[in-house]
Amino acid sequence: MGTGAKQPRDAEPDRGTLVTPSAEFPPLGPEERAALGRIGERWRPPRRPDELPVDPALGRRPTGPTPSRFGRLTPIDMFTVEEPGELCATGPAHEPGSRVGRALTRLRRALFGPPLSSSAVIYERMRKLVALPILSSDLLSSVAYGPEAMLAVLVLAGGGALGLSLPLAAVLVVLMIAVGLSYRQTVPAYPHGAGSYIVAGDNLGTTAGLTAAAGLMLDYVLTVSVSIAAGVSAITSALPRLTSATVLIGVLVIAVLLAGNLRGVRTAGNIFVLPTYAFVAALIALLLVGYARAAGRGFAPAPPPPVAATQGLGLLLVLRAFSSGAVSMTGIEAVSNAIPAFRPREWRNARTTLSWMVSMLVVLFAGLIGLIHLNGLAPRANETILSQLGRLTFPTGPWYAFLQASTALILLLAANTAFNDFPRLLFFMARNGHAPRRFLHLGDRLSFNNGLVALALAATLIFVAFGGHTASLIPLYAVGVFLAFTLSQAGMVVHWRRHRDRGWRRRLVLNAIGATLSGMVLLVAAVGKFAEGAWLVVVAVPLLVLLASRIHRHYARFHQALALHPPPPGGAAPPVPQGPGGAAPPVPHAPGGAVEGEELPQEVRHLVVVPMARLNRASLRALAYAASLGQPTLAVHIAPEDAEADRFREQWRAWGDHLRLETIVSPYRAVIGPLAHYLEALHASRPELTLTVIVPEVVLRHRWHRFLHSRAEQRLRAALRALPGVVVTSVPVHVPE
Amino acid sequence: MGTGAKQPRDAEPDRGTLVTPSAEFPPLGPEERAALGRIGERWRPPRRPDELPVDPALGRRPTGPTPSRFGRLTPIDMFTVEEPGELCATGPAHEPGSRVGRALTRLRRALFGPPLSSSAVIYERMRKLVALPILSSDLLSSVAYGPEAMLAVLVLAGGGALGLSLPLAAVLVVLMIAVGLSYRQTVPAYPHGAGSYIVAGDNLGTTAGLTAAAGLMLDYVLTVSVSIAAGVSAITSALPRLTSATVLIGVLVIAVLLAGNLRGVRTAGNIFVLPTYAFVAALIALLLVGYARAAGRGFAPAPPPPVAATQGLGLLLVLRAFSSGAVSMTGIEAVSNAIPAFRPREWRNARTTLSWMVSMLVVLFAGLIGLIHLNGLAPRANETILSQLGRLTFPTGPWYAFLQASTALILLLAANTAFNDFPRLLFFMARNGHAPRRFLHLGDRLSFNNGLVALALAATLIFVAFGGHTASLIPLYAVGVFLAFTLSQAGMVVHWRRHRDRGWRRRLVLNAIGATLSGMVLLVAAVGKFAEGAWLVVVAVPLLVLLASRIHRHYARFHQALALHPPPPGGAAPPVPQGPGGAAPPVPHAPGGAVEGEELPQEVRHLVVVPMARLNRASLRALAYAASLGQPTLAVHIAPEDAEADRFREQWRAWGDHLRLETIVSPYRAVIGPLAHYLEALHASRPELTLTVIVPEVVLRHRWHRFLHSRAEQRLRAALRALPGVVVTSVPVHVPE
Repeated sequence: MGTGAKQPRDAEPDRGTLVTPSAEFPPLGPEERAALGRIGERWRPPRRPDELPVDPALGRRPTGPTPSRFGRLTPIDMFTVEEPGELCATGPAHEPGSRVGRALTRLRRALFGPPLSSSAVIYERMRKLVALPILSSDLLSSVAYGPEAMLAVLVLAGGGALGLSLPLAAVLVVLMIAVGLSYRQTVPAYPHGAGSYIVAGDNLGTTAGLTAAAGLMLDYVLTVSVSIAAGVSAITSALPRLTSATVLIGVLVIAVLLAGNLRGVRTAGNIFVLPTYAFVAALIALLLVGYARAAGRGFAPAPPPPVAATQGLGLLLVLRAFSSGAVSMTGIEAVSNAIPAFRPREWRNARTTLSWMVSMLVVLFAGLIGLIHLNGLAPRANETILSQLGRLTFPTGPWYAFLQASTALILLLAANTAFNDFPRLLFFMARNGHAPRRFLHLGDRLSFNNGLVALALAATLIFVAFGGHTASLIPLYAVGVFLAFTLSQAGMVVHWRRHRDRGWRRRLVLNAIGATLSGMVLLVAAVGKFAEGAWLVVVAVPLLVLLASRIHRHYARFHQALALHPPPPGGAAPPVPQGPGGAAPPVPHAPGGAVEGEELPQEVRHLVVVPMARLNRASLRALAYAASLGQPTLAVHIAPEDAEADRFREQWRAWGDHLRLETIVSPYRAVIGPLAHYLEALHASRPELTLTVIVPEVVLRHRWHRFLHSRAEQRLRAALRALPGVVVTSVPVHVPE
Repeated sequence: MGTGAKQPRDAEPDRGTLVTPSAEFPPLGPEERAALGRIGERWRPPRRPDELPVDPALGRRPTGPTPSRFGRLTPIDMFTVEEPGELCATGPAHEPGSRVGRALTRLRRALFGPPLSSSAVIYERMRKLVALPILSSDLLSSVAYGPEAMLAVLVLAGGGALGLSLPLAAVLVVLMIAVGLSYRQTVPAYPHGAGSYIVAGDNLGTTAGLTAAAGLMLDYVLTVSVSIAAGVSAITSALPRLTSATVLIGVLVIAVLLAGNLRGVRTAGNIFVLPTYAFVAALIALLLVGYARAAGRGFAPAPPPPVAATQGLGLLLVLRAFSSGAVSMTGIEAVSNAIPAFRPREWRNARTTLSWMVSMLVVLFAGLIGLIHLNGLAPRANETILSQLGRLTFPTGPWYAFLQASTALILLLAANTAFNDFPRLLFFMARNGHAPRRFLHLGDRLSFNNGLVALALAATLIFVAFGGHTASLIPLYAVGVFLAFTLSQAGMVVHWRRHRDRGWRRRLVLNAIGATLSGMVLLVAAVGKFAEGAWLVVVAVPLLVLLASRIHRHYARFHQALALHPPPPGGAAPPVPQGPGGAAPPVPHAPGGAVEGEELPQEVRHLVVVPMARLNRASLRALAYAASLGQPTLAVHIAPEDAEADRFREQWRAWGDHLRLETIVSPYRAVIGPLAHYLEALHASRPELTLTVIVPEVVLRHRWHRFLHSRAEQRLRAALRALPGVVVTSVPVHVPE
């Protein structure tokens, strides 16, 4: 089956599902690189601006020029020299300057640990026996709530309808096997990671990929909510006194999971091994003991409990029960996302692990349904059916407590799986421009802080809105999951038709069966549970897809606008070095050249404008700074009435009239509007000029003092933002009080 | 009595109580002017920066140089030339640039009218017969709720206690006459305006002035709340169906008053004449008819109504009744604030008007109390006592409706008085640095928008909090008013002791009596009504005084920090013009020279730093801008890992390596922190350098798109704000999408 190595993502072999901190700095494309060189050839600075008055290596350069005679060593050891020409920031260089900021940083470090270096990104490879519990916690934990969800729908038609659980379970087992086989084929085809977003996007187009991603995003959010709701139920079934605190416990658990993941729990993956195996052991013990007892009774089923029917037993009810039971399959896609984490050959080990997982799922699910039926159990409001079964099977001894504890634990771990997968999905989406770029950022603990926080917020919102009630959340759950399954497998169908590797027909048929079955479950879940909450998902998925498309369009246009283009041949500025005199004769503006198009220093024509409100230390400093640039400089004063304008001009003469002053009377007393319009008019009279507006910015120490000042600098900046070709320079003056 | 012309504010004769738009631009003191000249003498720009590539007069200068050959006329007629060397902004120059802003401006103009030119500030002088109704509306309207407030306290001790109203009214009449005489003396002593804030501050010190101001501020807020509550009561007494809408009506009335004052109702002062005279006429008719009927009964008082006592008739109750009745005097200070608005000789006309006002107050107040007693009326919950009296006296005909309508109208006008006085008080406080400077700003309708909005908000808050219930508001009212009265008259006592004009002893005694009586009412009101709400005022006044002191301290230190000082003799930079080469040899930094102390261009030593995230059009434009300044330039790149740093350096070489590049590896992936610390370290190695950090700022068109970008420019600016000597320059690049 080595054919899987021929994979369709050869164009970007290094991207795959690798997470690198430099994803925030995408490399230049070949065209942009070529343009860069062409632009650089024409670069002619007016003077040599690279004789620096400081040593940029802070006197630490091991080789190279000796420190200048004015250089001083910095007192703080914030930067070290790693290799010639490269400084490396140490821990202290990351601390904020303000006292509050430093205190917050200390608090954060205490909670989440010291920062981790980028070199600590480890691509840890997992043995199969480790991978199995880590990747299967989400899938296997589903049997803690899946059978109950199905029975809770059937029991609406009365206790007698519970018998239908056996045929439904048989259909579900077929579905599990079909989907499992289908995924088995996806793994070797996408050895760099076969998430639904990638598989559907690759084969069915961007919209299908985004639809799968939207389904998965909702799935992850609901995995957290549902798993924690079920985990809290496991606890409150054993300790009924805690029932009233359900929401509080759940929110606390989400907070702990968030904190743990912000710390970077991922590196301690081995803690997953124990609870998963404990849960499997507890369930197998439960099944063995339970069936042994049933065998003692000659496998005679206990009569169904006398529950009165509240609804008729129609087709719709059966379909709803079926789709509720199908949530037992959530988490089956975990392996396909994590193929690169296996030891070589990755896809083969991943596939084997997948087979084990599905086998265990089938055994546990079918066994539980059968045992529940034999014992004649029905769902109750205050106790989970697994807890009822535990109490029946282990009336004495610590086994019941062990079962409940391992159930609660594996459910928490399942929620934790979403904390791993959701930010990674957003990372991949952001790398393709389908999600905000901030989800590319690796926090200082190498975790995707923004994605983690987004997930925790969304999951908390849903958990609280539904009161931590598992049964209310299930209808929302199935739609997103089966949407992703269906699209992923439909994508594989297209994949086989395109690639036609050896045995492609058989594979196509298998994937087509999987896609058809998943699609039917999707339809059943969306239609049957529409009124019970599935409409939320039906509405949310297209909205998310639309949002992602809009985000992508924005980024595409943004990058297009900022992309480098080679300069027009024989264009505006001839490559003749300018004299050092500065006041070079203005060249006529190239007709096709856009404003802000200059990428060459010799094309920049300056006019420096200094708005003056009054003559004080701050404004004189701005004037001195402006004049020291040696460019044509104009001072502007806005006066509310003639008398004030005269007074200001008189002060200006007293100062010495060193610069050209223009006074504008604003009879309606506004300052920012007339000033902005005046600058606009100046700019309109010579569009090729770059106006540099130099404003003194008084920096106050206390935040509340800002209310006492007009903050004209900020308002001017906001008014000038919209004008092209206007550069704003803030000259700060720090006021001690 | 011409001695009053010798007034203590001769030091600032032009400030007085005049409101000018140039108060926002205070003139330089003589020392600062001298320093300005000394600084100007040493100014040596590196090159002549005043040869401009544009015509700053936009081609409109009537005399002077012809437009440059590159000059173009601006297409929009935003600026006209008023006199040589001065542009004048026209209406369109005040319109904001954005579409939303223009729509808002149009809406505002439709509501509040077009902007008014500064030259429209009219110092209108009033004839006495016009001044009387304008200034007395607040005072005379008080009789609409003052007597009722007193009786409402007395009736707590049963219907029989209402008879006490006659002796209490006699004492109040004495108090009115004493305070009136006291103010008669203040008027000629402060012909430029004798507000309590000025009189108390002048004679008793700043804290006393601020205390009086705090009392007045609360007084104005409560005048609005109480007058509107009483006015709404007058309406609901006549039309009981409206009672449930009391709060809504009141809030609407405040909004209408605010809108009217934002429009500048002040100029239409004549609308005050009619309602005041109508109210006086209605009350006099009421008194005449009422006493004529009583004479027909032989002035035999009707028996007091049979109201059961709920409290014992103790001294405290009597004192509380007295202080409640004293609110009839609120507004007596109006004349003293408005002296400059009278025709010459101002103080004499003002004093005469004051005498008329107090006489009318005494007649109306005493007459009403007597008539209420004769008719045996008691306060009721749903009808004002004035309305009861009106119904009794005018059982038929339109007179009752006329009385109620004129009462409601004069109460609204009284509230409007506060809308005139509160912003003016804040203006005077702001001019002395005791209130935020934004209260100096005259809006485009020549009204103090900020003060008006502050008053409307505070009054609405109090009105709503007390449910528009007049009786609940009265306890708060008396304290602030009598605090201002007491301090003003105590100030006059000190004034006479200091100045000892002719007859000063007699005047001192009169003012001392006024101060003592007011002080006693203040004490009675504060103690007797402490639990009923006066504690709010007792707490608020010191807080307001503290706040004003803190504001003043901040402004004082702020102005001290920015004040101009002459340069140190024989200081750092010799007045030798620098060569045009730019890279002048660095002069050793003056040991005593503070960072940011440079006020001379030849002292500024530049280092330009360009942080580079990636090479694109925005960053290359920032680089080109930086290089075009011709100053030493350094580019800095922050990389998350070594591999990315190598990649960026390789791109840099592909560009041509035109500028010195320093790469900093930030292994913990933060960008802003290490960059800020690196700049700090650079600056520490040469503190006399001015670092100019040039950052490309991508300007997005849609606000929601900002969420998709890291806004590193803003965060960098915030991080660099705290560093002295670091100038931040934003080079904008506008992205069409």
